[in-house]
Amino acid sequence: MISFESDYIKGAHKKILEKLIETNDEALSGYSTDSYCASAREKIKAACKKDDAEVFFLVGGTQANQVVVSTCLRQFEGVLCAKTGHINDHEAGAVEFTGHKILDLPQHKGKIDPEELKDWVETFYADDNRDHKVFPKMVYISHPTEYGTLYSKNELEQISKICKDFNMMLFMDGARLGYGLMSWDTDVTLEDVANLCDVFYIGGTKVGALCGEAVVFTHANAPEHFMTMVKQHGAMIAKGRLLGIQFDVLFTDNLYFEISKHAIEMAKKLKELFIKKGYQFFLETSTNQQFIVLENKKMEELKKNVRFGFWEKYDDNHTVVRFATSWATTQEDIDTLEEFI
Amino acid sequence: MISFESDYIKGAHKKILEKLIETNDEALSGYSTDSYCASAREKIKAACKKDDAEVFFLVGGTQANQVVVSTCLRQFEGVLCAKTGHINDHEAGAVEFTGHKILDLPQHKGKIDPEELKDWVETFYADDNRDHKVFPKMVYISHPTEYGTLYSKNELEQISKICKDFNMMLFMDGARLGYGLMSWDTDVTLEDVANLCDVFYIGGTKVGALCGEAVVFTHANAPEHFMTMVKQHGAMIAKGRLLGIQFDVLFTDNLYFEISKHAIEMAKKLKELFIKKGYQFFLETSTNQQFIVLENKKMEELKKNVRFGFWEKYDDNHTVVRFATSWATTQEDIDTLEEFI
Amino acid sequence: MISFESDYIKGAHKKILEKLIETNDEALSGYSTDSYCASAREKIKAACKKDDAEVFFLVGGTQANQVVVSTCLRQFEGVLCAKTGHINDHEAGAVEFTGHKILDLPQHKGKIDPEELKDWVETFYADDNRDHKVFPKMVYISHPTEYGTLYSKNELEQISKICKDFNMMLFMDGARLGYGLMSWDTDVTLEDVANLCDVFYIGGTKVGALCGEAVVFTHANAPEHFMTMVKQHGAMIAKGRLLGIQFDVLFTDNLYFEISKHAIEMAKKLKELFIKKGYQFFLETSTNQQFIVLENKKMEELKKNVRFGFWEKYDDNHTVVRFATSWATTQEDIDTLEEFI
Amino acid sequence: MISFESDYIKGAHKKILEKLIETNDEALSGYSTDSYCASAREKIKAACKKDDAEVFFLVGGTQANQVVVSTCLRQFEGVLCAKTGHINDHEAGAVEFTGHKILDLPQHKGKIDPEELKDWVETFYADDNRDHKVFPKMVYISHPTEYGTLYSKNELEQISKICKDFNMMLFMDGARLGYGLMSWDTDVTLEDVANLCDVFYIGGTKVGALCGEAVVFTHANAPEHFMTMVKQHGAMIAKGRLLGIQFDVLFTDNLYFEISKHAIEMAKKLKELFIKKGYQFFLETSTNQQFIVLENKKMEELKKNVRFGFWEKYDDNHTVVRFATSWATTQEDIDTLEEFI
Repeated sequence: MISFESDYIKGAHKKILEKLIETNDEALSGYSTDSYCASAREKIKAACKKDDAEVFFLVGGTQANQVVVSTCLRQFEGVLCAKTGHINDHEAGAVEFTGHKILDLPQHKGKIDPEELKDWVETFYADDNRDHKVFPKMVYISHPTEYGTLYSKNELEQISKICKDFNMMLFMDGARLGYGLMSWDTDVTLEDVANLCDVFYIGGTKVGALCGEAVVFTHANAPEHFMTMVKQHGAMIAKGRLLGIQFDVLFTDNLYFEISKHAIEMAKKLKELFIKKGYQFFLETSTNQQFIVLENKKMEELKKNVRFGFWEKYDDNHTVVRFATSWATTQEDIDTLEEFI
Repeated sequence: MISFESDYIKGAHKKILEKLIETNDEALSGYSTDSYCASAREKIKAACKKDDAEVFFLVGGTQANQVVVSTCLRQFEGVLCAKTGHINDHEAGAVEFTGHKILDLPQHKGKIDPEELKDWVETFYADDNRDHKVFPKMVYISHPTEYGTLYSKNELEQISKICKDFNMMLFMDGARLGYGLMSWDTDVTLEDVANLCDVFYIGGTKVGALCGEAVVFTHANAPEHFMTMVKQHGAMIAKGRLLGIQFDVLFTDNLYFEISKHAIEMAKKLKELFIKKGYQFFLETSTNQQFIVLENKKMEELKKNVRFGFWEKYDDNHTVVRFATSWATTQEDIDTLEEFI
Repeated sequence: MISFESDYIKGAHKKILEKLIETNDEALSGYSTDSYCASAREKIKAACKKDDAEVFFLVGGTQANQVVVSTCLRQFEGVLCAKTGHINDHEAGAVEFTGHKILDLPQHKGKIDPEELKDWVETFYADDNRDHKVFPKMVYISHPTEYGTLYSKNELEQISKICKDFNMMLFMDGARLGYGLMSWDTDVTLEDVANLCDVFYIGGTKVGALCGEAVVFTHANAPEHFMTMVKQHGAMIAKGRLLGIQFDVLFTDNLYFEISKHAIEMAKKLKELFIKKGYQFFLETSTNQQFIVLENKKMEELKKNVRFGFWEKYDDNHTVVRFATSWATTQEDIDTLEEFI
Repeated sequence: MISFESDYIKGAHKKILEKLIETNDEALSGYSTDSYCASAREKIKAACKKDDAEVFFLVGGTQANQVVVSTCLRQFEGVLCAKTGHINDHEAGAVEFTGHKILDLPQHKGKIDPEELKDWVETFYADDNRDHKVFPKMVYISHPTEYGTLYSKNELEQISKICKDFNMMLFMDGARLGYGLMSWDTDVTLEDVANLCDVFYIGGTKVGALCGEAVVFTHANAPEHFMTMVKQHGAMIAKGRLLGIQFDVLFTDNLYFEISKHAIEMAKKLKELFIKKGYQFFLETSTNQQFIVLENKKMEELKKNVRFGFWEKYDDNHTVVRFATSWATTQEDIDTLEEFI
């Protein structure tokens, strides 16, 4: 059965597996002090065009979100986030577990609105009782968002400026960053991300790796003793090579961008297929996640041959479902899908 | 240069890599709900001879310690541990980060003494002011300990009984469990561990895997909603297959025990070599870690050809160093070492 | 200058001060084990008509909220609350500081809507991915709310039933409970509160005491070792007598209700005064807090003679302000106010 | 029955009660922004001879310890403390509850040894693996200690220097500070304490107040947004006047020192009485706590007429008990005691 259930259903890109085998017998030092981690760091800094960036490797997305938020905020500070932000809704309270409040903003197709953000912060600082409140110190955005949507460069610039004006950090959850950067409808580059954010991460788990997210502090601004705090979160692994080797491969010869681009080409074909067949879209996206409104009977029928993701109830007779492509999706998958829809 | 620096310097056992490649294109569900995780769980339960055990896969040792302690204890409860226990001394306060106190006991070559444990708990419950104190609810032991030493079956039985008598859980950190079970000087089996502990983990990272620890709750006693709390700790990975496949391989055809046994055989040869050459041992161990007292000049000379671990200062002219074998150590490594010492 | 700034601007009811003096030389045991705490507990249980209630004394409202939420929830559980709930907006993240997420619901004049609550919980339990989310285990309501509004008995019954149906605790923040119970427009009694809530507190700080809140677990359902956790929160005071004596006085001869009634009578007069003078009300309340919309110039003028609380900006020319009466407000205060408005 | 059970068995000094009554009808602003808090702050700064000190009022000792430690440390930092330090042993894990590890040092009659402290810190910084450990950032001492003993000025100077040399804060728990400063055997003044510590508190609860501890950051070094964090800990009270008025009285006309001196004079008489009668002392102290070793039968007999505190078992036939004097102890109490011992 073909599956468009998510972008983490397959193993890893074969070049990664080859490199794991090739390097397997090398005796390397632990805790990300090895040469592959070092090499991967340099390649990522080069791709970002940021000499003073600091790069760290973590295992997964929730972990990266938790560690970044928790280590960057002081005790009395919180993080602003769209109501639908992953940290607010799908991470089992991982941020609050470390003692910090998430301050939620309205979401618009998964995105926050710069004007609403500015209003929120201005209202906060105009409040004489703000000393009884959690202080906003970070803005969390996901790009692509949980709904597959993207910020424009102009929107990112506005948000970045507001952050600077009010002494907040801009943090981008890039679990699917490659699929955003390679979208057919974006004007945002990796360099832009590195220029506009204070910290972001480049998702590996959903883009070709077995696991791994590369956290980038963009201007020598990693919190002091960051690795000690990573250890304290239980997030440090002994064989850091597992992460270093994977990112070293992904950032060699543009692999990360090429496999992302492939996923996006598959998404475009998938989208066109649904359009051609007259399906209703839940919202408009230009990344690897496409959201379709299915009549429930049709949905049950389709399930017999295709795996896809349940998203939410639309009305009593319809359901929103998600079809995700990835680096591993093939033209055959698309062709087979066409037979069933 | 040969290296006895630690037991996590090499990649993974080749059978694991082969299986990763073999299964790479299978579309599997995420978050450890896949068939390989299921299979690995059953094999581990069978190896433990515990039908009602519950098995979960985590990425690393500090993470496993943090998650187990934090999810098993209520807010006002703490964990008893040898002063030198890994959670007390080398995990950057990961347990305290979750709000729990570590109650330390004297260490004897890394072990706690059952009598001292009993005295401590009896004194606690005799104290009329105990309501102003952290309640002891768990005993943490590492086996092998941080010093490579082992508890006897009798000692484990005594500790287990004290735990039962005072309503505490017995938790064994088995980061190097294979090397303990295959020691030439132990009467403790995996079955014993499963019978005597309430929860323990089988270390993969240091015993043939790229990463991964299998947490075993031995009698259907995993905390309710354990996986939600794993997520909350940032410890859940999307591609749970990475852990499931590795443990499935390790627990097929006794691989885990065979590679552990090999490491122990190498350790025995290494130990005999040092004895033969008249070196001074810091303490007596029968596992894969051997601690030697080196004259400082000798140490500097040896460093030119062999990598080993610094342990602690012995006196102004001597240093304690650690030589560790592992599943990946070869007879050639031992032979080469002989040339240099 | 007369002040309607808040309900905590004066010291304590004179009967409390008299009792503090009268008992001052008695040697009493510490940590709320004294006879006055015991007596106060019995009187409160009697007033609630709940033999199996368990009563504890804490110092302040934020502390009571933090301690109750944190001790009643397990690690993966959160608390539902109106967006404007005190714990969500004005306590500097005290709940999140203990690791728990606040799950916010829409507010309607400070209240949650039973239907919306039910929908939220049903949607949660219908979500197959709920294991990646914080579980709802408690519903927090304030009564009176932060806007001075009150739940009807019927609304409380509905909310209580939903809590029971979905295994959640109902927790009422009663920082101003007396002023709610003595409202001229309520059908809710203390007995109702004790019957419908799992835990609530009777506010002393704002109702005649120097400090102190009486936390009532209504059916022998206080968390085990509650006092140890109170200590752990830094919330236990050595001279528990300070709290016991105050509540003993407040619950002798109906004092708590009588002084609350007095405050409400003053509020009614104050409200009628504003009506008579044609002022605009921000919303309709029947408790000790009255919210008025003032033209900004008028507001500045009024400030010269009367203290009141800033609430929020209404529009560019108007501001919402709060006038609060209390147990200590006098007819003279009202008469003087009339001169200035 | 006379009682020497503790130093918190009586209410408050009568001048405090008088002032509470005198000021009761004044309308004061909340949250320690009132004029009495302001006045008390100035008087305390004057008593410390520290113009740039910052003074805050908290309710109790455990709360003060928790708030100070938690707000001064970053996430990865811990606090050094004698094994018997109050925060380590008698506060139900209040420090760990906020995520921080207590790093314990050997105790010598309740005190830490400067040399051992220095060795500990030097060993820490010499450890190449210190990045996997909790960093020492604060030294906690109690003065008097839990055993009633005192540091000499020279010892404090040594500890203070070590703190400076290794960039640590020196924090003194002064729950009984008055009784230490007025000891017949000390060379330490309040001015010395303010000069040598980075932060300390002046205990009110045990020295004449109903509740309250005055936290003094000695050189404009209070953490930014300290009051917001106090709120976040649930430690801020609405009627801050309760604390301000008490400390204003205590620091008017040397009252704090005079009542402390009285307690010490009573302690001296009590000590001489026990010496005269040939009792065995558990250790030598010159403050308000005296520790006596009683034969168990004698202890039971004495209990019929005198209340005192159980400390610890001495041997099978003897028990260590504590007799505490306080500001409220009278000559009559001593005389009556003489009849029974």
